[in-house]
Amino acid sequence: MLDSLRGEVLKANVELSHRGLAKHTFGNASAIDRKSGHVVIKPSGVPYDTMTAADMVITDLDGKIVEGTLRPSSDLATHIELYRAFTEIGGVVHTHSHFATSWAQSLHEIPCLGTTHADYFRGPVPLTDSLTDEEIGTDYEKNTGLAIVRRFAELDPMQTPAALVASHASFVWGPTVSAAVETADILEEIASMAYHALTLDPGGEPVSDALLDKHFLRKHGAKATYGQAKRP
Amino acid sequence: MLDSLRGEVLKANVELSHRGLAKHTFGNASAIDRKSGHVVIKPSGVPYDTMTAADMVITDLDGKIVEGTLRPSSDLATHIELYRAFTEIGGVVHTHSHFATSWAQSLHEIPCLGTTHADYFRGPVPLTDSLTDEEIGTDYEKNTGLAIVRRFAELDPMQTPAALVASHASFVWGPTVSAAVETADILEEIASMAYHALTLDPGGEPVSDALLDKHFLRKHGAKATYGQAKRP
Amino acid sequence: MLDSLRGEVLKANVELSHRGLAKHTFGNASAIDRKSGHVVIKPSGVPYDTMTAADMVITDLDGKIVEGTLRPSSDLATHIELYRAFTEIGGVVHTHSHFATSWAQSLHEIPCLGTTHADYFRGPVPLTDSLTDEEIGTDYEKNTGLAIVRRFAELDPMQTPAALVASHASFVWGPTVSAAVETADILEEIASMAYHALTLDPGGEPVSDALLDKHFLRKHGAKATYGQAKRP
Amino acid sequence: MLDSLRGEVLKANVELSHRGLAKHTFGNASAIDRKSGHVVIKPSGVPYDTMTAADMVITDLDGKIVEGTLRPSSDLATHIELYRAFTEIGGVVHTHSHFATSWAQSLHEIPCLGTTHADYFRGPVPLTDSLTDEEIGTDYEKNTGLAIVRRFAELDPMQTPAALVASHASFVWGPTVSAAVETADILEEIASMAYHALTLDPGGEPVSDALLDKHFLRKHGAKATYGQAKRP
Repeated sequence: MLDSLRGEVLKANVELSHRGLAKHTFGNASAIDRKSGHVVIKPSGVPYDTMTAADMVITDLDGKIVEGTLRPSSDLATHIELYRAFTEIGGVVHTHSHFATSWAQSLHEIPCLGTTHADYFRGPVPLTDSLTDEEIGTDYEKNTGLAIVRRFAELDPMQTPAALVASHASFVWGPTVSAAVETADILEEIASMAYHALTLDPGGEPVSDALLDKHFLRKHGAKATYGQAKRP
Repeated sequence: MLDSLRGEVLKANVELSHRGLAKHTFGNASAIDRKSGHVVIKPSGVPYDTMTAADMVITDLDGKIVEGTLRPSSDLATHIELYRAFTEIGGVVHTHSHFATSWAQSLHEIPCLGTTHADYFRGPVPLTDSLTDEEIGTDYEKNTGLAIVRRFAELDPMQTPAALVASHASFVWGPTVSAAVETADILEEIASMAYHALTLDPGGEPVSDALLDKHFLRKHGAKATYGQAKRP
Repeated sequence: MLDSLRGEVLKANVELSHRGLAKHTFGNASAIDRKSGHVVIKPSGVPYDTMTAADMVITDLDGKIVEGTLRPSSDLATHIELYRAFTEIGGVVHTHSHFATSWAQSLHEIPCLGTTHADYFRGPVPLTDSLTDEEIGTDYEKNTGLAIVRRFAELDPMQTPAALVASHASFVWGPTVSAAVETADILEEIASMAYHALTLDPGGEPVSDALLDKHFLRKHGAKATYGQAKRP
Repeated sequence: MLDSLRGEVLKANVELSHRGLAKHTFGNASAIDRKSGHVVIKPSGVPYDTMTAADMVITDLDGKIVEGTLRPSSDLATHIELYRAFTEIGGVVHTHSHFATSWAQSLHEIPCLGTTHADYFRGPVPLTDSLTDEEIGTDYEKNTGLAIVRRFAELDPMQTPAALVASHASFVWGPTVSAAVETADILEEIASMAYHALTLDPGGEPVSDALLDKHFLRKHGAKATYGQAKRP
């Protein structure tokens, strides 16, 4: 299982780079094996083009290294808080993708302005509070994760599979790490569309709840009609 | 005829992806054989890079599947309403191309600000009304088509071969599906130019009727002088 | 001479396409042989990827075809007015390149906001008046050229080698057609930079005359110090 | 040493072009051998694709050519002032990269709006004063360097490794010329993000000092925890 996850996590990290979502080393992906509670994550500051599956670092949910000789991504503690709080997710991706990050820097959530967005997120992409000096001073990465979790007190992380961290960038998750990469790619596109729609007309309003639900539920949940029928 | 249309429709769908007009599976193309009244359309949620001509689904104008084992695109009912109302068109394309969608999300039609636009559209690219909750609740895709048709009560679909659906994206059509793909590509470019012109100066005004007609009629209609003489 | 110009004009047209300055067939390039007064220009509506040198059309300065079986570009009459009025130029390029066209659509000249601009244009890139209905109705393409020439009554076309035609796009020229292509490429870049600078701060002011002259004259004219010494 | 620097400087210049930071010949890179005080710089106006290591020009810190038959980049005198004032730097890069230049043209420094910026610059990317007519008239390039140095009277060039020259473009430096190229690439990305964040909401505020220091010091300085442990 862990060997297979190692490969998936490597692939996800390479995909982030290939899709232009993580320039330089601005990004990291991880996956969790729920049975053992072990997390597989990218090592810190290793260039995407030389990384191998064996470079992936394996830790437990306390962040203790179980396997691997390299330091884990400096954002490990954030990933761990997400895995602890969002028990249905299997993978997490952090990117500084361009437009999602610009929204995070502008300190605004991304409103749902159209059906492209509603196909993937059942509502706005939420923004965390800014971290306090104390939260930054000690256990910064862990507090970043806690800020996301706090923001989701009233939200379902499976219906809103991403958050913008104030003045920072996005964290995206999903049932698998490859699903999280796909959603990170979609997030960048809808962040860019929302930017262009709102700079064209700053008074733009979110879609109706009826339209939001129609599109979200057409693709997700028990009554989904999109795509081909699943084999029984 | 249908075999040939299958190939054309496959090619059109692949072109949408190659030209960057339909990321992921955000898009679909169809064509109609007017003699039999059969529509050839992309299957739902199949990745562009593995689709074959045999995957295309064939339906009648009531949406009943005539040939094919896959589910048709979930937007089939919209395409059908366009084929019913606009009897001169042979192909329809739906894309979430970036700037056209941003305009649809901003709930503004695209004004004709220059000759690039006037070469292809004899006036603004119109925007539909927002669908009501009732229209969204039942027969959503069919009602999307009806909203476009209603918007064209006073417009000639051959002179304005595209519409923006409010909070959604664009539908584009033409005498053939490949012409519709070409127009979808042009639409994206003029949507982007209009965005940049109007964010530079929000007070920008449409071109004069004289300039609009000069450019549109230079390329279209009986007195066209653009391109090479047609063989008799 | 004409054979060589045919090749240069073909190459210039292909370059416009390769550099992304002329999508579809939105663009054309021509050159003049000053000795014979013959103009070599792209045929109308022929795709860039199948065009050959033999397809180029040769006309005199009255627009009469001297050689070639295809129709010349519909903008020929504009090119001719530029060759008649600007006697030092050897090549003309017309493109609908994205940002230059957005400026033309916004009905503003491009102010000289920085040294990138000043390296190539000794002042703003001027905008013509809008054509009147009469000018559009008869001899439209010729009147487009005359509008440019009128705008240059007080300007030196060798120091300002481009114009924006109101609600249309750019015409660019130079001592040779390949120099005009290069300038068209630069124009697009400075149009884009000026767009971004002015949407960031609409109150931006042009550079000082001292800075404008320093940069322009460092690259152009008798006292140029840029590049390598010319062989005597 | 100089032979090795020649290769590094050639590579840096080629990288500027490959990464899209220096279109045409809008850019130059140099390195210094601190032992001999010799500067290796790109020749003026030579296309990137034909440049060889042997074309690099070597001068002393008075700008006198020590080796090489070509003219040095016209910006040599600016590079020299930076090497004289910032004694820890080993390489300098000048580019007209798109968004950094747009900021320089808008006459605003780039505020630190997020952690992507804070990872590389400990504060805003500063803007020089506009040069006076006198400074432009005589020793323009040297005065450009002096304007940067003046702007850094209270700044540490190792913590703020770039400056925007008013109405011109950016100069970027670092311990080596390849580090300067990397920083120039980052600068372009953060300039673009800051543009998009501030056009989305012009009231955006810089990050807190706590967040700025956290990110900058996580990657730089004695207590850095980012990346893999250095071998002792």
